[in-house]
Amino acid sequence: MTVGLERLSLNTATVKHLNLRDSVALCQRHEIRGIGLWREQIQEIGNEAAAAIVRDSGLRVSSVCRSGFFTVAPNDWVSMLDDNRAAIEETAAVGADTLVLVSGGLVPGSKSLPHARELIADAISELVPVAAAAGVKLAIESLHPMFCADRCTVSRLGQALDLARRFPPDRVGVVVDAYHVWWDDTVLEEIARAGERIFSYQVCDWILPLPADVLLGRGHVGDGHIDFRPLTQAVEATGYDGMIEVEIFNESIWAAAPDETARTVRERFTTHIFS
Amino acid sequence: MTVGLERLSLNTATVKHLNLRDSVALCQRHEIRGIGLWREQIQEIGNEAAAAIVRDSGLRVSSVCRSGFFTVAPNDWVSMLDDNRAAIEETAAVGADTLVLVSGGLVPGSKSLPHARELIADAISELVPVAAAAGVKLAIESLHPMFCADRCTVSRLGQALDLARRFPPDRVGVVVDAYHVWWDDTVLEEIARAGERIFSYQVCDWILPLPADVLLGRGHVGDGHIDFRPLTQAVEATGYDGMIEVEIFNESIWAAAPDETARTVRERFTTHIFS
Repeated sequence: MTVGLERLSLNTATVKHLNLRDSVALCQRHEIRGIGLWREQIQEIGNEAAAAIVRDSGLRVSSVCRSGFFTVAPNDWVSMLDDNRAAIEETAAVGADTLVLVSGGLVPGSKSLPHARELIADAISELVPVAAAAGVKLAIESLHPMFCADRCTVSRLGQALDLARRFPPDRVGVVVDAYHVWWDDTVLEEIARAGERIFSYQVCDWILPLPADVLLGRGHVGDGHIDFRPLTQAVEATGYDGMIEVEIFNESIWAAAPDETARTVRERFTTHIFS
Repeated sequence: MTVGLERLSLNTATVKHLNLRDSVALCQRHEIRGIGLWREQIQEIGNEAAAAIVRDSGLRVSSVCRSGFFTVAPNDWVSMLDDNRAAIEETAAVGADTLVLVSGGLVPGSKSLPHARELIADAISELVPVAAAAGVKLAIESLHPMFCADRCTVSRLGQALDLARRFPPDRVGVVVDAYHVWWDDTVLEEIARAGERIFSYQVCDWILPLPADVLLGRGHVGDGHIDFRPLTQAVEATGYDGMIEVEIFNESIWAAAPDETARTVRERFTTHIFS
């Protein structure tokens, strides 16, 4: 096995149309040792059945995606927290390392970024003891600034890190997602500063033009403009030895045969991530 | 005249289909005292004719947009610098305060951000004496990170400022464009740090969804998600007393009657920028 390939994890968003069982089988067929799951896949069959499939597979679950969306109207605060508690349970059930948090955009009816960011910190405060009791780590993901208004007001890796640092280092950390952070001139120093707080490293490529739905504009590693080597080197230099997840949202990749996608993911991982 | 309205400048990109003479007349009809010009409008009639129209109008030219695009292949380096020298001449000819620089994306065939950013610094070094001789100020604009690959690898205000600070403060500064910087959790402190280096403050709103061509997704002030007040306050707190330019790229605004656009621009300026 090529050096580094044992670190590859396939985030199942990349093969969106497969259910949990078929995603697991795909990884096994292609000697991919890690898998990143989505909550929908777990919920579809229930925590117990999902846990059994994962356990029998021998795969490592590098993350569960995703929870968060903390920036709700006051009336939705309690149900938002309940949903996040359920996510923590699901993560623990499948034996995953980490639950990914996407924090949410502006609060409905508000243009205040400080207000949104305050709610995010408040919600994480509530969830830390729940996560600790379940043995789950919470990874704050900074999303590309183009998602700031509607999906995530945590827009820089350094911002995610500053937020994480309010909490214990074994419990709250950050996701380094190449797609979301590659443009940032401070990213290498922020990765170094993150150190042991890096709970997840995700990769996919920045391709142009952006599609009508900018959520779906991600490409296979190597098809776009990101120079992954300096990012990988910086992450490795912190001592991070976890899985590296390939997570791609793209209609045409979803339409491709999953085995073809898995082959491309493997090949690009060896040529671009650890080369 | 409402307080602050004397600071309003209409960037002519907002009324894209008007030529220089008609843009000037529009500003006069609506008591808009400043205008931001585009090079194409000046080139269409020549520096002398453009200068005469502006001089006769009594309008203040708050900026000329735009030059830069420094990140070219080696073969294009000389012609790129020539074009930037022409832009400096045009800016001086119309008596504008400032020439706006959009730095360019990745160098063709390269994925290296450091390489692109080095070329940008090199090019500005070449242009500073030219600008000094012409009495023109150079304003580095950070563009939203979604333009990093293809238009501008200067993606944060703080990054633009760090670059500007390599050069004399009366010659090289930054543009604070609300659309490009609003999402940044460090923006208020970076505005404070920029101080006298703020050569231009531009406004338009972040509206969703982003259109197919993300360049054209800007909205009238007040139609989107940006809270302008803290930005304006921070800019004012530095002592900035220049014009505030409304610059909107939007197909439907371009299709509207220019007088209607000018009325909306004035109205929104009083309700959202200085309110």
